[in-house]
Amino acid sequence: MGVSRQILLLSSSTVHGTEYLKYAENEIKSFLKNKNVQRILFIPYALQNHDEYTDKIRSAFVKLGYEVDGIHKTSDPILALNQAQAVYVGGGNTFQLLKSLYDNSLLEPIRKKVLQEGLPYIGSSAGSNVATVSICTTNDMPIVYPPSFKALGLVPFNINPHFLDADPTSKHMGETREERIKQYHELPDVPPVLGLREGCMLHVDGDKATLKGISGAKLFDPSKGASDYEVGSDVSFLLNIQ
Amino acid sequence: MGVSRQILLLSSSTVHGTEYLKYAENEIKSFLKNKNVQRILFIPYALQNHDEYTDKIRSAFVKLGYEVDGIHKTSDPILALNQAQAVYVGGGNTFQLLKSLYDNSLLEPIRKKVLQEGLPYIGSSAGSNVATVSICTTNDMPIVYPPSFKALGLVPFNINPHFLDADPTSKHMGETREERIKQYHELPDVPPVLGLREGCMLHVDGDKATLKGISGAKLFDPSKGASDYEVGSDVSFLLNIQ
Repeated sequence: MGVSRQILLLSSSTVHGTEYLKYAENEIKSFLKNKNVQRILFIPYALQNHDEYTDKIRSAFVKLGYEVDGIHKTSDPILALNQAQAVYVGGGNTFQLLKSLYDNSLLEPIRKKVLQEGLPYIGSSAGSNVATVSICTTNDMPIVYPPSFKALGLVPFNINPHFLDADPTSKHMGETREERIKQYHELPDVPPVLGLREGCMLHVDGDKATLKGISGAKLFDPSKGASDYEVGSDVSFLLNIQ
Repeated sequence: MGVSRQILLLSSSTVHGTEYLKYAENEIKSFLKNKNVQRILFIPYALQNHDEYTDKIRSAFVKLGYEVDGIHKTSDPILALNQAQAVYVGGGNTFQLLKSLYDNSLLEPIRKKVLQEGLPYIGSSAGSNVATVSICTTNDMPIVYPPSFKALGLVPFNINPHFLDADPTSKHMGETREERIKQYHELPDVPPVLGLREGCMLHVDGDKATLKGISGAKLFDPSKGASDYEVGSDVSFLLNIQ
């Protein structure tokens, strides 16, 4: 792993009752300031309507002082990536997002740009899922079939975005989020899963990883079980997983 | 489609506050009586521990007067299927279930036995998902990678088991079940999705399909939108989808 990676992974783009990205505004500005970013390359693949999605994201980022380019508008996505100052991968359907990244041969170029050249990467929801080793802990429906569940591997573990603690009063018999993650951990050789509650972000600065935002995270380790981490926690140890 | 197919698809094995399969007991007995079934072949692939799972299912079915054989105990699953009087496919992780069906080359043999020879098929949750055209509307996490999302195709549409109506008071920002199904329906050439609420079953008797159980279903049609169906509704039109 390179020491210069700059990654900000949001559980969700929005928390209840606020505008798109509002809760993460200061964090995003501070994240991009170090690299003097003025334009953001947006990857809208997680939703069907790329133009509409890009317009929505542009409105949010323009308020923060950034220009936004939709990668779908360019004839050469890899060139656009190579020229980008920062990339934002939005939420939607994780399977659709990952399949489109494969269809456009973007996985290896993004991995290289982020890990070796320090391109700032912001992901939200599905965009956070694809930043990890695999999409095996997404909450989304498998509406399209990607060539693999293997993802960017910018961090060596899995994320469950929109992580939701079980409701003890619920009468619903479908598996809780925790039960689903436990089923994953019954398999051999699978990494820990970081459940980011809505409003939580993981900030990776080189070899340092910190929880930010307005809610914490729950970490599921296949051998050690579950443990809670508050906002502000240093979780750099997660970057050392082999 | 053959006229003799006998299929019972449960949203869930259990409803809140009752024992395993309790709410569906009478329906299962009446379903199996016509074929004079005494032994049930159980497919436990959706969970990791096949022995433990089979023991649990055996306890439930023994009370109803049926013997249970776990397909994992035989050296020749296809032979076991060919000799079976009825099959029960239990819930758990849909991806794991479908992958194991592929690994054991069981899809085509099950399809043939059910559609051409009238082998009674009971599915619950993941076992209902794999009975449809694809697992594209499962709620489960993609913990393993099956060779395809294409499933048994015993009925020509999709099912969403454990269907849950949106909670208008929720502050959770993750997509509702309905929003996820709508994302699926933005794709071209996808079939309707029958959202079976917990406690609902779909009974297919040849060319007749009826909703049974203690709760109804919500049908999502890519062109016509959503509509509710009560217990007792005749939904045979769903079997005519091309």
